[in-house]
Amino acid sequence: MMAWMDESAWKETLATKRAVYFSRSRGKLWRKGETSGHQQIVSEVRIDCDADSILLLVEQTGAACHKGYESCFFRTVDSEQKAHIADERLVDPESVYPATKKQ
Amino acid sequence: MMAWMDESAWKETLATKRAVYFSRSRGKLWRKGETSGHQQIVSEVRIDCDADSILLLVEQTGAACHKGYESCFFRTVDSEQKAHIADERLVDPESVYPATKKQ
Repeated sequence: MMAWMDESAWKETLATKRAVYFSRSRGKLWRKGETSGHQQIVSEVRIDCDADSILLLVEQTGAACHKGYESCFFRTVDSEQKAHIADERLVDPESVYPATKKQ
Repeated sequence: MMAWMDESAWKETLATKRAVYFSRSRGKLWRKGETSGHQQIVSEVRIDCDADSILLLVEQTGAACHKGYESCFFRTVDSEQKAHIADERLVDPESVYPATKKQ
């Protein structure tokens, strides 16, 4: 998955070894798994050469993706720009995020 | 490594199976390896759930990083926010990018 951090998310991730992001849409810290239970235990934190990108190596509990896949990158794209689902769905998103259930 | 694409970079990457990015600092397409020879042969293109992040799985020729490492993420960060080089340098950057050689 790809997400954003602010300084507070960065510090809390390093201190707790649980992935914490900053939700730009909600404007607040996003402790991954606090709603879904699908937390990420951080085994390694890496930064890139110009220190503006962070790579977390994590043990993923359940599905990282809100669509129920382990990874958000569950689709491949072919040379005609068509997307194909390449992974197995692990959980029903409606069972994890009941608030988003369709009426 | 992490980099940016515009539509043109995206289409050329899919068509040629060579990683092409958009250099925001240079304001133009960045055909990875055109200066260094360290190109990336794309074996798989993935997109994330909201289709605004791209994950390329590549065969990396030489070093992806301009600092001479296979990956730009060659440093780990510990719980005190200290960075440590964790990988072996593959090439001398000055031999790859002579234009950046110190005077």
